[in-house]
Amino acid sequence: MIVFLNGQFVPEEQAMISVFDRSFLYGDGLFETMRVTNGKPFRWWDHMERLRKGGDFLGIKIPFGCKTLEKFAAELIAQNKLPDALLRLTVSRGVGPRGYSPKGADKPVLVMTLHPFSGAPSTGPARWKLATASFRLPAGEKLAHFKTANKLAQVLARAEADAAGADEALLCNTEGFVVEGASSNLFWVEGETVCTPPLASGILAGVTRAVTLELCQQLALPFAERQITPDGLRQSSGVFLTLSSLGVVEAKELDDIRLTSAPLVAHLREAYQRLLTSETA
Amino acid sequence: MIVFLNGQFVPEEQAMISVFDRSFLYGDGLFETMRVTNGKPFRWWDHMERLRKGGDFLGIKIPFGCKTLEKFAAELIAQNKLPDALLRLTVSRGVGPRGYSPKGADKPVLVMTLHPFSGAPSTGPARWKLATASFRLPAGEKLAHFKTANKLAQVLARAEADAAGADEALLCNTEGFVVEGASSNLFWVEGETVCTPPLASGILAGVTRAVTLELCQQLALPFAERQITPDGLRQSSGVFLTLSSLGVVEAKELDDIRLTSAPLVAHLREAYQRLLTSETA
Repeated sequence: MIVFLNGQFVPEEQAMISVFDRSFLYGDGLFETMRVTNGKPFRWWDHMERLRKGGDFLGIKIPFGCKTLEKFAAELIAQNKLPDALLRLTVSRGVGPRGYSPKGADKPVLVMTLHPFSGAPSTGPARWKLATASFRLPAGEKLAHFKTANKLAQVLARAEADAAGADEALLCNTEGFVVEGASSNLFWVEGETVCTPPLASGILAGVTRAVTLELCQQLALPFAERQITPDGLRQSSGVFLTLSSLGVVEAKELDDIRLTSAPLVAHLREAYQRLLTSETA
Repeated sequence: MIVFLNGQFVPEEQAMISVFDRSFLYGDGLFETMRVTNGKPFRWWDHMERLRKGGDFLGIKIPFGCKTLEKFAAELIAQNKLPDALLRLTVSRGVGPRGYSPKGADKPVLVMTLHPFSGAPSTGPARWKLATASFRLPAGEKLAHFKTANKLAQVLARAEADAAGADEALLCNTEGFVVEGASSNLFWVEGETVCTPPLASGILAGVTRAVTLELCQQLALPFAERQITPDGLRQSSGVFLTLSSLGVVEAKELDDIRLTSAPLVAHLREAYQRLLTSETA
């Protein structure tokens, strides 16, 4: 596999960074994961916008303009002959003086890697088992809106889900509301209304979350931002998750309790697939 | 500078890790920072104990035994001719399959680096300006007890402190209590009692925090674990911070408001210096 590293295309064995890199030391970085279909990263500009906002928030200047990065991404996909894949773009603050202060660390590192992808849910009715995690996210934390390299709560939540035989972990915030999946945004159905927690509850501003809200509007499905407890989720008319790699994925169980299936989730999943296909045609 | 990397001593330019390393991608790792005096890391075994507990919690097997690592550390100090320094030991979960799940990532990476150190507070009466940060830690989070590579809240808190002309940032938890400094544990004086937040408030189990509580016992100073707000801190009889690099550091200002100086802080600082000197003799 060929990796893009700071403007160079290199074999993966040579794609190395310093042990003094701040994303290695502190998770002081950002990333984006994009679905690549027909050789094109889906919603490239949405991902770039979130990355830029994250860079502004963290005070990291993103190396290269978005147009240039788009060309590099296309070149990476072509060199690896992987038109169906996941593309990960990582930006680290790079190397700086010792200590937490970011002062003096002004040579950010940018990496793009491609990962083979078999998009199961697009071809079948897979529904996920969910497990609520024991790790809690700080309610209302603005840092949570960005896709930072601080993902240990999510990593350990996924390890708990693995141990429970579940496909994805759900995380609560410090106020006891379920706010997101380890690698996905959370939605549920109340009556006919599609609900999702507000960004202000301290969650990732997911690109697929925003696309899903667009689709609700197009399909004339009422939607609302609300808060919910794990119990509320179990009593809802349906639960689903959204993530860039897989789009819309319905949940079938939460902590071994069976969840209701809402027909509108299948409509949203199909609408998402159509959008993915048409925008990457 | 020579770096210890997975059993090898290499020049720093060659101390490189993969861009697929999980501490680079997710902050999926742990570290320890130790004061080295007279060629010896102070409280080596306390740091090793916290590292092992962190490894158990994260499910990362620490490469090499503590005895072996101690020999490697001594060798690193000798090779770099730096008997007065800071030693950073980093353990990453290493490379694994794509995604948050740690499954299949079973080749951890261990790095030790040395950093020149000039221990200002040991030689003078430096007192710090503190600034409360806008980032909040999840109250009661058990993950916070370990020194993980997820330090973005601390990094950004330090950036805010830098911008305010302060020496250190104080972080509150989601319940509104001040719980720790970005790179230090928090203490304050109420009457004659030395106070510090309980670990259960969601803070790092600092090695120097524990040493300071030992010293209180030796000096017959009453101490207690309590919670406090920023306002309470300003009304206290004195505030100080503890950290492995500098020991005990008194605070002089919090958000531009002058703090009272408690004479017992100087006694604790001197007792800490005596202990450091005697244990590394």
